[in-house]
Amino acid sequence: MGSKSLRISLPLWTLILETAFIVVFFFFTSYEAPLKKLELLKKYPGFQDINVMAVLGLAFLKASLRRYTWSSVAFNLFTLALGVQLAIILDGFLFSFSSGRIIINIHRIILGTMTTMSVLISSGAVLGKVNLIQLIVMTLLEVTAFQGTKKLIQDFLNMDEHESMMQIHVFGAYFGVTVAWCLPQPRLHAAKDKERRTPTSCLFTTLGTLFLWIFWPTFNSALIKYPYEKETAVYNTYYALAVSAVVAMSFSAATHSDGKISMEHVHRATLAGGVAVGVTTNLIQSPWPAMVLGFFAGIISIVGAKFLPGCFNEIIGLHDTCDVHSTFGLPGLLGGLIYILLIIIKGGWTNLVVFQIPISVGYLCLPMAMGLAGGLLTGLILNLNLWKAPSADKYFDDQAFWEFPHLAVGF
Amino acid sequence: MGSKSLRISLPLWTLILETAFIVVFFFFTSYEAPLKKLELLKKYPGFQDINVMAVLGLAFLKASLRRYTWSSVAFNLFTLALGVQLAIILDGFLFSFSSGRIIINIHRIILGTMTTMSVLISSGAVLGKVNLIQLIVMTLLEVTAFQGTKKLIQDFLNMDEHESMMQIHVFGAYFGVTVAWCLPQPRLHAAKDKERRTPTSCLFTTLGTLFLWIFWPTFNSALIKYPYEKETAVYNTYYALAVSAVVAMSFSAATHSDGKISMEHVHRATLAGGVAVGVTTNLIQSPWPAMVLGFFAGIISIVGAKFLPGCFNEIIGLHDTCDVHSTFGLPGLLGGLIYILLIIIKGGWTNLVVFQIPISVGYLCLPMAMGLAGGLLTGLILNLNLWKAPSADKYFDDQAFWEFPHLAVGF
Amino acid sequence: MGSKSLRISLPLWTLILETAFIVVFFFFTSYEAPLKKLELLKKYPGFQDINVMAVLGLAFLKASLRRYTWSSVAFNLFTLALGVQLAIILDGFLFSFSSGRIIINIHRIILGTMTTMSVLISSGAVLGKVNLIQLIVMTLLEVTAFQGTKKLIQDFLNMDEHESMMQIHVFGAYFGVTVAWCLPQPRLHAAKDKERRTPTSCLFTTLGTLFLWIFWPTFNSALIKYPYEKETAVYNTYYALAVSAVVAMSFSAATHSDGKISMEHVHRATLAGGVAVGVTTNLIQSPWPAMVLGFFAGIISIVGAKFLPGCFNEIIGLHDTCDVHSTFGLPGLLGGLIYILLIIIKGGWTNLVVFQIPISVGYLCLPMAMGLAGGLLTGLILNLNLWKAPSADKYFDDQAFWEFPHLAVGF
Repeated sequence: MGSKSLRISLPLWTLILETAFIVVFFFFTSYEAPLKKLELLKKYPGFQDINVMAVLGLAFLKASLRRYTWSSVAFNLFTLALGVQLAIILDGFLFSFSSGRIIINIHRIILGTMTTMSVLISSGAVLGKVNLIQLIVMTLLEVTAFQGTKKLIQDFLNMDEHESMMQIHVFGAYFGVTVAWCLPQPRLHAAKDKERRTPTSCLFTTLGTLFLWIFWPTFNSALIKYPYEKETAVYNTYYALAVSAVVAMSFSAATHSDGKISMEHVHRATLAGGVAVGVTTNLIQSPWPAMVLGFFAGIISIVGAKFLPGCFNEIIGLHDTCDVHSTFGLPGLLGGLIYILLIIIKGGWTNLVVFQIPISVGYLCLPMAMGLAGGLLTGLILNLNLWKAPSADKYFDDQAFWEFPHLAVGF
Repeated sequence: MGSKSLRISLPLWTLILETAFIVVFFFFTSYEAPLKKLELLKKYPGFQDINVMAVLGLAFLKASLRRYTWSSVAFNLFTLALGVQLAIILDGFLFSFSSGRIIINIHRIILGTMTTMSVLISSGAVLGKVNLIQLIVMTLLEVTAFQGTKKLIQDFLNMDEHESMMQIHVFGAYFGVTVAWCLPQPRLHAAKDKERRTPTSCLFTTLGTLFLWIFWPTFNSALIKYPYEKETAVYNTYYALAVSAVVAMSFSAATHSDGKISMEHVHRATLAGGVAVGVTTNLIQSPWPAMVLGFFAGIISIVGAKFLPGCFNEIIGLHDTCDVHSTFGLPGLLGGLIYILLIIIKGGWTNLVVFQIPISVGYLCLPMAMGLAGGLLTGLILNLNLWKAPSADKYFDDQAFWEFPHLAVGF
Repeated sequence: MGSKSLRISLPLWTLILETAFIVVFFFFTSYEAPLKKLELLKKYPGFQDINVMAVLGLAFLKASLRRYTWSSVAFNLFTLALGVQLAIILDGFLFSFSSGRIIINIHRIILGTMTTMSVLISSGAVLGKVNLIQLIVMTLLEVTAFQGTKKLIQDFLNMDEHESMMQIHVFGAYFGVTVAWCLPQPRLHAAKDKERRTPTSCLFTTLGTLFLWIFWPTFNSALIKYPYEKETAVYNTYYALAVSAVVAMSFSAATHSDGKISMEHVHRATLAGGVAVGVTTNLIQSPWPAMVLGFFAGIISIVGAKFLPGCFNEIIGLHDTCDVHSTFGLPGLLGGLIYILLIIIKGGWTNLVVFQIPISVGYLCLPMAMGLAGGLLTGLILNLNLWKAPSADKYFDDQAFWEFPHLAVGF
């Protein structure tokens, strides 16, 4: 059994990693000096909003598989708790290293949490198909890749923290999808049964969706510097989310021959507005463009959720468990296109704009390219025999990883 | 099948409404100017508290029906996302229209969310008996009616934002009950089975109740202007809620021949203190009157939950799915009576008070009258053949609206 | 039937207690004067974080028993709502009584909520084995005992509010365990079936765990006075929690012969870091000691969860339903030991330190001793025939207390 080997390897990996992290923290980090601290705790409520999104929202968003709810929720916390430690270290070395010390403050913890959310997004695509050790490897590689991507965006394209972070959706989606594409595909018959949703598990997924919906404005505005831009970002995100929630439910009915709504579409498209408005949320100056964007993001997400799994994924041999492609990938790309459009509209066809378009296109393509490349590399590594990956028969099954002391019948 | 028609009509309605909203927002709204913005984001945490109440609290509060959990939670979000757009537009035109522009800021979004919560309250009474199109119509009509009610209270009775908003419970409850009274009643036998609660669905309802219980002090203090009154409002609400939570559980046992507690009573009466103390929360100057009020609100709510469905409702032929009458209506009326009492006690029988009593009585009766009238009108409209309402056989059934890709047995 | 008697005695107890509380509040309390209020509401978001921990976190943490979910969650709210009223009164008389008045402000409500959380912790050990009246008695006694303990720590050991409150875990755990030890033990066969966890009930428990995990930094920093210490406290708690979450999942696999993770270990050990770092959270000056502490706290908690129930508990005849000993007791003791160690390291072996060590040891032992003594007294009182305690056959069963209007099959 692949699982038996986890008994030794899992604690060993954790021991090695945590020792390494603690040593790095010992030599290279210290807390902010008292004098500078007084302002920082103002960011604490925002940090908690984002924490709720990561720990509850993204966890329960993935909890829809009937027999995989425990792993979805618990492994999500594991991934976050591990990833955030690495993310803060890399963030320190790459972005704020001075005089040999990384200064820890709430802003850096927020950055670390948001960076690690890329893994939480990607893991939706490989959900149920990897074990905890593979998840550790993926976390280490993806956090590193995303920190690298942000560094490139900031240094070569001259973007700021907010703009580089907002590409998390595109990066995370394509990273996850590529890893999933590399893994052995689930056998159709066994998987169909285990992948079933139950009304209760879908209700937990809805709970996750709602947590994300509520606190998304915080996510989109957390890294914006000027208070008045922050406020605009909050409003734009709110309006985009409101419209995409309405669109999600009503247009899902249009895709079904009996006019029935698909709960999975709702889980995808409700959040599409928040994803799409991410990169432009501080540039849009009145509610209506955010609303229009939320409208089309919702529709694109539903169209993706309807047609990608049956057509595109089948052709290229991809199994994207939580359909992160439709949830985060497509709306993210739409947002990127709108960003380019806004740059052009704002400046007219002046020289400056002509110069800025390649940068914007690079801004749009770089995260996607890094996601695909990083995902391919990670996928190949995860396919090594080394990790005792679960066999395709054992996919989507909590019982491969969890002790069920008293087996209960049904869900 | 009534549901098939939703395939075209639902997206069409949404398309028309969202287009209309976007056009209005295009012509009439803009964001607050940068200079004024700096203070406003301070209200953001309070906004999120209220958002949690609306999106999670009121959603899961209605999630107790065994076969209607999905619709309860998802339609609640749909209603909120749609209603808040209309509410902000109407709020702008009625209360803050100047020089041809509606200025959007966080305060107006809070007002819009709170206003739309009237629909979320009312929808508890018609839960399971209307389709999504009827819910759209009801949202449009009720938001308009409640904005009108608040305008009347503010202009003719000289009340402020807080005082007019706090009548939401009475207005929402009687609006919802009247609409429910107009709709075809569920057939007893089929409904009994579908209306069953399961332990799990009731636990989700408890989750909703707890979210509401926690953040109610924010709701009752959000619109109060002076910081020291705001603080008193928080404390009073907290004490009233604490006492009504204790009363809810212990006095529910008194109503059962075997001394068993009814979970439905708990869902109703736990929140009664928060409802009842709403209109007087900034007038009460020490904890004990709030506690007394919470005590009696809890008892009235339990008595209502015990005796209304079997007696009153049966006589007048009313089916109030979530018993909003006991949860919001009766404690709201109690709060109104205490308001009048406080006005009298404070002023003694001076001329001023004699003059104020008719105003207070108007303040108490107007929302109820508007709720009854608006509910009657809405109920008659919802009864038109136009909306392809679900037949009484199909009440309380998620399967009428939702695609179940893999039918699961039981909950 | 024991339950029938609740019909009269439960409302009677509530009536007497609430009347008493209201009378005390009438004679002895008033709200803060307006002028002083302006600053206080800044603490409101922190209060809400702690409220979420108490009302949602500690409630759902106990919701894992298949047939006892309702009571776990609802009785938790009841206990909190009742206990906080007494806690505020006692807190006023013991710690802030001046010129005959207790001044109520948000800080005192925070203190009251945190104090009552001791009962919410202890009730995990007696979960399913007491009725609501016994829970009332336990609440009254434990709140009083913990307020006394804090008074002793502050007056005789010269500690501050934060330091005295942080012993809540040790006090609560040993209080609860001792009460559980005094109660009649459950009959093995019947209990085994009713104590079963289901996947869904465990998911609710995970939800509670996650709420606690997210907001624990607020809990550990709420009572710290200086803003820069508060910030350090937040960071240390966050790092300790991150490491213990990683350790919880990976080292649980090491305790199972097939390398499977136990969800119950995860529920215990994920939070161990937050418990352990409590008393030293403002003394640790960089992330790595907090991480080391989180690491060992997680391991101790898992070792406790693995070996205590089968060995120690069996020998002394103890049934600790939610294993509060491993969750709160052991990590709390570890934290206390580290506190003594830090005092020694900080000062070297100077006279001052030699003088401080007995104080620190007293600081460590007093809450444990008070917990054991208070628990013993309470346990003996709860064993009186007076309370119509549920018989050991009826343990862990919602149906003893709750009306199930339509009995559902299974969970």
